[in-house]
Amino acid sequence: MESTMKSLGATTFLLPAPVLLAGSYDPQGKANIMTAAWGGICASQPPAVAVSIQRTRWTYASVLERKAFTISIPSTSQAAQADFAGIRSGSKVDKFASLHWSAVKGEYVDAPYVGECPLVLELALLQSVEIGSHVQFIGEVKDVKVREDCLDEKGRPDVAAIDPLLFAPVTRQYWGIGKLVGKAFSLGLSID
Amino acid sequence: MESTMKSLGATTFLLPAPVLLAGSYDPQGKANIMTAAWGGICASQPPAVAVSIQRTRWTYASVLERKAFTISIPSTSQAAQADFAGIRSGSKVDKFASLHWSAVKGEYVDAPYVGECPLVLELALLQSVEIGSHVQFIGEVKDVKVREDCLDEKGRPDVAAIDPLLFAPVTRQYWGIGKLVGKAFSLGLSID
Repeated sequence: MESTMKSLGATTFLLPAPVLLAGSYDPQGKANIMTAAWGGICASQPPAVAVSIQRTRWTYASVLERKAFTISIPSTSQAAQADFAGIRSGSKVDKFASLHWSAVKGEYVDAPYVGECPLVLELALLQSVEIGSHVQFIGEVKDVKVREDCLDEKGRPDVAAIDPLLFAPVTRQYWGIGKLVGKAFSLGLSID
Repeated sequence: MESTMKSLGATTFLLPAPVLLAGSYDPQGKANIMTAAWGGICASQPPAVAVSIQRTRWTYASVLERKAFTISIPSTSQAAQADFAGIRSGSKVDKFASLHWSAVKGEYVDAPYVGECPLVLELALLQSVEIGSHVQFIGEVKDVKVREDCLDEKGRPDVAAIDPLLFAPVTRQYWGIGKLVGKAFSLGLSID
């Protein structure tokens, strides 16, 4: 049955949006992170992830200069820290110091990640795409790291243990993940 | 404290990934949807959303031809249907008919959306970006619609009622959202 829909107009509402802590070294070599929610995986081969950043952000020139960035995914328990990293600018504040977080130099790219986050990606800049207000940085994934306490007994990532923070635009809320619904490429096989 | 991390190698693992039902009319004018998880919001002005699609997909030529697509976000209760739409090809199956879903013609763009989904975006194709295995379609959001039973008493979208389906790559699982963690642009203000 088709239901009635209410229009919200032309806006940026999609659920869920991720909470991406984009890590880079600034022109002075200081490790910095900024929180971004406009992004996601964008290709499989090469594995690639996009994050969109405004030109006015401190992170913008840093990524272009070293052609590298990281993405650290915070847990729900790190929501306040992640929010802080989106409010403050690295031009004025040493966010790693303020948050008592470790800036760990990437193994594969010239950018720092958050040592305390449960899930980290290292990315080499592949392309920059101009889209109005934002520049979309497309990074090739060079490595994915999962904190050891977020692996299951077989060494696979445990989504519930990672407990990723989610962002809801428009309502401007953070949410957590909930229940496992089922297996992909499997649930739909029962339908003809 | 910095914890030990385990490397998963260069792969596409980011949490959460969305479950995007990309709607389009095929060359014969038949309404079709395909499930995609590689995508997200990519700009604010104009409001824009990206979805990456392989060239071999039935949807690929359809989007290019009409320069339009929609994104319907399924609820957790629609997980099996969403999974079906990712397994089968519109070249062989009428997915709307198989799923008993309504193909509603967009108000603003020449593409159909799923009338039963709680959240829908109408998009006009802005750019196509080649990224290895995938082509990223960047669409300008022309309208966002929320099902009326997913609005709160003030007419704002209710994230818990929308109950969006989430995808976890690598583990290949669907998840639901859980608890509200807090307000964005607010939680972090308590940190110096």
